[in-house]
Amino acid sequence: MNFDQHLSQRARNMVPIAIRTIVRRSSGPEFITFTAGRPAPNLFPIEAIREKTDKVLSEQGSLALQYGGSDGVFGLRTWIAQHMGNRTPDDILVVSGSQQVVDLVGKVFVDPGDKVIVAEPTYMGALSSLNVVQPQFLGVPCDDEGMMVAPLEAALKQGGKLIYVIPNFNNPDGIDMSQSRREAVASLAQDYNALILEDDPYGALRFDREAPSALHELAPERVIYAGSFSKILSPGIRLGWLSAPEEVMPLLLMAKQAADLQTSTFTQMIVAELVQDGFMNEQIKRTRAYYKQQRDHILAATDRYFPSAVRYETPNGGMFLWCELPNHLNATAVLEDALAEKVAYIPGEFFYPNGGGQNTMRLSFSVVTKSEIDKGIEKLGRVFGRAIETARE
Amino acid sequence: MNFDQHLSQRARNMVPIAIRTIVRRSSGPEFITFTAGRPAPNLFPIEAIREKTDKVLSEQGSLALQYGGSDGVFGLRTWIAQHMGNRTPDDILVVSGSQQVVDLVGKVFVDPGDKVIVAEPTYMGALSSLNVVQPQFLGVPCDDEGMMVAPLEAALKQGGKLIYVIPNFNNPDGIDMSQSRREAVASLAQDYNALILEDDPYGALRFDREAPSALHELAPERVIYAGSFSKILSPGIRLGWLSAPEEVMPLLLMAKQAADLQTSTFTQMIVAELVQDGFMNEQIKRTRAYYKQQRDHILAATDRYFPSAVRYETPNGGMFLWCELPNHLNATAVLEDALAEKVAYIPGEFFYPNGGGQNTMRLSFSVVTKSEIDKGIEKLGRVFGRAIETARE
Repeated sequence: MNFDQHLSQRARNMVPIAIRTIVRRSSGPEFITFTAGRPAPNLFPIEAIREKTDKVLSEQGSLALQYGGSDGVFGLRTWIAQHMGNRTPDDILVVSGSQQVVDLVGKVFVDPGDKVIVAEPTYMGALSSLNVVQPQFLGVPCDDEGMMVAPLEAALKQGGKLIYVIPNFNNPDGIDMSQSRREAVASLAQDYNALILEDDPYGALRFDREAPSALHELAPERVIYAGSFSKILSPGIRLGWLSAPEEVMPLLLMAKQAADLQTSTFTQMIVAELVQDGFMNEQIKRTRAYYKQQRDHILAATDRYFPSAVRYETPNGGMFLWCELPNHLNATAVLEDALAEKVAYIPGEFFYPNGGGQNTMRLSFSVVTKSEIDKGIEKLGRVFGRAIETARE
Repeated sequence: MNFDQHLSQRARNMVPIAIRTIVRRSSGPEFITFTAGRPAPNLFPIEAIREKTDKVLSEQGSLALQYGGSDGVFGLRTWIAQHMGNRTPDDILVVSGSQQVVDLVGKVFVDPGDKVIVAEPTYMGALSSLNVVQPQFLGVPCDDEGMMVAPLEAALKQGGKLIYVIPNFNNPDGIDMSQSRREAVASLAQDYNALILEDDPYGALRFDREAPSALHELAPERVIYAGSFSKILSPGIRLGWLSAPEEVMPLLLMAKQAADLQTSTFTQMIVAELVQDGFMNEQIKRTRAYYKQQRDHILAATDRYFPSAVRYETPNGGMFLWCELPNHLNATAVLEDALAEKVAYIPGEFFYPNGGGQNTMRLSFSVVTKSEIDKGIEKLGRVFGRAIETARE
């Protein structure tokens, strides 16, 4: 049957996520892959989750397997509110992973044609979620402090209504937005009466530098904050949250009910047990220490093996190293050579909604072993060296 | 801060679900409540879930807590395909409860102003999900065989593009659509090239009568089927699925990724273990037998205590008894008297998108004990008797 006339306008504009093709092409065991945005499975507290599941099912099985409130399990919201620092449980709505926050925010705030401001580069998964409500994206270029101020103000002048931003260790470029830049974003949003969607899956994975202010601290009246357990506990368990000004919480709650009634009572109650007694402090400390080691290890390897023409900065946190080949090289073309050598990365251009970044790439250091890092970066160094040589000829 | 100018058009039209207010007003332990659409917690296989969780975490913990495919865990899709009878695992997309199917179908097929045909009465949760994409609802009245044919054809002539229907034990009125009516719906959908969203949370809870054909069997090329584990296993675990013609599966998958990336790997793997070795056959048999007993018990009580002017049919399955007061009485007004007597039901008018049904009500028999049924129905009988008397005066 032909469905052309049944599809919605938004469905006609849906495109598969290009990254998934690369991940699939590099998924054999013979590949060393720096593609994955996945957390390291050795950090999953499997035994603790098993224990807490036992406890929940033994003591409160009928509650855990039953419908619950759409806002989420109270004990979990209590921990989240404390974790955020300036919130109460009523300010928190538990969702099925922080991707869902983008879906809900799009539904509540964005009409077709509305202008949404995004960093270039940015997390494309958020854009495919927002695309459902058919906005116009205004891209703002970034330097090593994050979104640049003058282009951001220009985008706000053009009517940008919502700013989507990952201030802590942006996916893909790992940039930690500077304090002054955060203050500028908050203050410009206020001047132009725009909303901010602060997406923060990596905030707890901070290695160096003291944490700058969160946007929800700088502009609490206009920030919708998206938090996640995916990178600090488990992504397979699908738990995230949002916090927003109290005036809009009822609308976000109704959008949540309409989307999927509620997040799993079962997984929420397990995690509500798990977060008691300071468990998450230890878990976050352990996670942060592990990724810091991984970051140091990949930097030692890139320092050793990458040609000097390949540029990168030290990420202060998160899971990603962002690299730039010389301007005239195309990282998507070079990837073919890398795949032939059984090593893979994600070309940066896939993170630019309006084009650009052809010479950039994202290397994830979360799931590779140290010896894979050594071998893989050595291979990539050779691949890049050849590409630079060939371009000279 | 005032958010009036930030809200989307769809957010301006969002209204809280009225039912929740009644549920809240009757939530004390002193209440006998026939309001709940919740399954009976004594049917939850708590111990089996505990065992399977142990097994999954012990043997495959790193997989269970990691990201997985957006389509769902293969072993679970395999069972679902067999359960549906005429499907393969590739035809199945696992979702976070069947409510999410409505969200995804709305996104992929419905533009603002598109005409969506719904039964009157119908499940309002589906309408609040569809409301996000701002359709126009065309209501079709029902008799005891389901949607009536002439009004359905009239709605299709008016341009109805999608028919939303619960053929098995419709929520709220429990109607089991007849075989000939199902054939008429399938054939009219074909004549007018409309799609059908077959929502089927209660299909496995069939007590009497042989099962008529499912719409996805009668018109596989145009039916999107929504299935659920909520009523046969656990709603708190949030697992459902959709099956659709293969041409539209990629779009529904992209919509799923955009909405929340994927359904929980953890809960999917637990249920994939649980459904092995015929467990679900036993679980469904047990569930069905229990609700049949409950149905018989509530009917014995209504036969004994309800005034003869209160009308109801025997539901063939599901969890709901639908009652009609004499036409001149208003079930919402009568509810106040019932609440004063510490007994509650859901007035039927809340299930009519365009008004109507003022004299109807839904009594759920899923979570009440047998002695609560006896006491509660006796009280309601008195309340209805008084209302009928008073109206006569």
